[in-house]
Amino acid sequence: MEDELAGKRLKTDCVQMVTCQGPVNIAVIKYWGKRDEELILPLNSSLSVTLGMDELHSTTTVAASRNFSEDCLWLNGRKHDIAKMPRIEKCLSKIRELCQSDQQNTRWSELKDCHLHICSQNNFPTAAGLASSAAGYSCLVFALSRLFQVNGELSRIARQGSGSACRSMYGGFVEWEKGEMDDGSDSIAKQIASQEHWIGLRVLILVVNEHKKGTSSTEGMRRSVETSELLQLRAELCVPQRMETMKKAVLERDFKSFAETTMKESNQLHAVCQDTFPPITPPYMNQTSHRVVQLVTEYNSFYGEPKVAYTFDAGPNACLFLLENEIPEVLALIKYFFPPDTESGFVKGIGIHSQGTLPESLLESISIEPSHGAVKYVISTKVGSGPCELGQEYSLLDEDGLPKS
Amino acid sequence: MEDELAGKRLKTDCVQMVTCQGPVNIAVIKYWGKRDEELILPLNSSLSVTLGMDELHSTTTVAASRNFSEDCLWLNGRKHDIAKMPRIEKCLSKIRELCQSDQQNTRWSELKDCHLHICSQNNFPTAAGLASSAAGYSCLVFALSRLFQVNGELSRIARQGSGSACRSMYGGFVEWEKGEMDDGSDSIAKQIASQEHWIGLRVLILVVNEHKKGTSSTEGMRRSVETSELLQLRAELCVPQRMETMKKAVLERDFKSFAETTMKESNQLHAVCQDTFPPITPPYMNQTSHRVVQLVTEYNSFYGEPKVAYTFDAGPNACLFLLENEIPEVLALIKYFFPPDTESGFVKGIGIHSQGTLPESLLESISIEPSHGAVKYVISTKVGSGPCELGQEYSLLDEDGLPKS
Repeated sequence: MEDELAGKRLKTDCVQMVTCQGPVNIAVIKYWGKRDEELILPLNSSLSVTLGMDELHSTTTVAASRNFSEDCLWLNGRKHDIAKMPRIEKCLSKIRELCQSDQQNTRWSELKDCHLHICSQNNFPTAAGLASSAAGYSCLVFALSRLFQVNGELSRIARQGSGSACRSMYGGFVEWEKGEMDDGSDSIAKQIASQEHWIGLRVLILVVNEHKKGTSSTEGMRRSVETSELLQLRAELCVPQRMETMKKAVLERDFKSFAETTMKESNQLHAVCQDTFPPITPPYMNQTSHRVVQLVTEYNSFYGEPKVAYTFDAGPNACLFLLENEIPEVLALIKYFFPPDTESGFVKGIGIHSQGTLPESLLESISIEPSHGAVKYVISTKVGSGPCELGQEYSLLDEDGLPKS
Repeated sequence: MEDELAGKRLKTDCVQMVTCQGPVNIAVIKYWGKRDEELILPLNSSLSVTLGMDELHSTTTVAASRNFSEDCLWLNGRKHDIAKMPRIEKCLSKIRELCQSDQQNTRWSELKDCHLHICSQNNFPTAAGLASSAAGYSCLVFALSRLFQVNGELSRIARQGSGSACRSMYGGFVEWEKGEMDDGSDSIAKQIASQEHWIGLRVLILVVNEHKKGTSSTEGMRRSVETSELLQLRAELCVPQRMETMKKAVLERDFKSFAETTMKESNQLHAVCQDTFPPITPPYMNQTSHRVVQLVTEYNSFYGEPKVAYTFDAGPNACLFLLENEIPEVLALIKYFFPPDTESGFVKGIGIHSQGTLPESLLESISIEPSHGAVKYVISTKVGSGPCELGQEYSLLDEDGLPKS
């Protein structure tokens, strides 16, 4: 009995574990196109809003042990072969390098002969078409940095997992500077304002019903870089000025300018996709997406100023930015024009305290027809923080370093 | 009895009448954006294919008489107030000026005190969303030129009715040179190849079911000029090279290059529309349009080369270019993926001599689902000639200069 316990303790004692959470981010100045596929260097700088982890996050546990026979990865409950995931491998090797190269870091001697077990999952369905890779890689790199006790420019490593993941390394409002160096050393993320900077800013994600698997953003981007003349022109001639406008809007909490620039950027991203050849089929934005654009456009036009801004990435889901006091009316509007099959569970995330009412004159000014069930559900969230470490009770791996469920 | 006859002859004798037909054209290098709204001067040159008048045409009768109390216009059976149609008025006054300024033209003395009756109709429903204004204005200007017996650069006048109408002044393949002069004198159309140049080239117009009235091309264009940075860049940096590629493709009857450039141009036009702010809602291309794009893309991909090219203007209808021998298979494909409610009358225009069959492997390579009734009908046509004069039996006005029906 004592021997058994001792044996177990010996075994578990040498499993070192860290569990972290990483956030999703939504770009308001869009990243579309790489100038270097291998290093994941972008054609242009971009700017994003980190979303609240209470609503959307990845959780990752990384465990190291000499008892593990190989590096292993479980992603959303399924085991994957790391050898076939070069971007994961790159993040691991970059962190190991960083640890080894730091003379003061005593951790390397403990971990250099260890293999890793990594277990990661999102609290939102991948099928929702939300950019899970940014949350996933930011969380992985952050967890590894804690395990290996390394410091340094982690966004540079996360970037090499998934470009936009570098922006999820910070909370609040984050710029990804495209950088100039060939080795990518200056292509890093920087926080331009914290999550507390603009308390009233809120986010609604409209998860749109869509069964088809579209073109991946990696593939779409690659094809745009190869074939869209407008992408090159946009990256060189349009984005630099928009970055300045957007930074100013964020720093001054100027919602009008923030909203307009956000919508123009979303439009231009999808314009570039439309300019790609052979075309990206089906287009990322579907009929429901375009109805959301029309609804927002007519809503803003009714009020004579931008009250809501839409933005779309490489999928049909709409991400809406708006100020807190507009939430009840806008949610009522969404429910009116995209009536859910069942009211219950339609709005997830931050609750609302008052039901909005819709003025008759507003409804008359909107020319779209209601589409039943076109929006599956809405996630209500706000500006959030960067990755953080969680207590051991949140670990996804058991004491032997194997997935709990 | 004799007096009656004499009276009638006297009256009718002084009604001078001409009836003409004018064609529709489809741009393969797109016109989108004016640098001068008043003179209708384009941001960039464009190139079009004139379509066969057996299938699509405007017919216009112009009549002049001292007995008419004012200039009158009947358009598709409805009387319009010319005073409220400045572009019609401009065409009339330009032709009158041209006639008056020509010292040798004896016609002016006959017609200077006459008012005009104009009656015009299309043989296709305006609701079909085909660019009727190009056919209409080319036909009007051509008919007026015959009535007033004027020569000179008529495309310059048609252009001031409706920009693209200048291209309908010629048959075959037509370039509209943007010109450099502020007065627009060098912004004119030129035929680059006749209708006999590329006999095998065929055109299928897919008239798409669409009830909503969208943004007019005039309004969409104006908004793009004001707000789309990509439009400016396209006009300056992309179109000049594409014009050269397209002219070469036409002159060499190089279908591959013609098809690719046509599709890229259509994509870029709609990219610019997508880049416009506030957005053009609903977008010109609807779900059916995008399905046609996907069908054509996957069809071409199956054969490993462009067999069909799509192009879209400011509406959801697709215009397909293809070579004659592909017609049976492509029509079978369209019927398969857009099954009509009734087969009868689905394909209008040039008949087909053999039914196409669809290889199983082809059908398996197409990933869209059939959409019943999404395409209303198909117009099968080919490259056609410029405007022509018709015999008096085709006149839309009776001997008193009033509409026959």
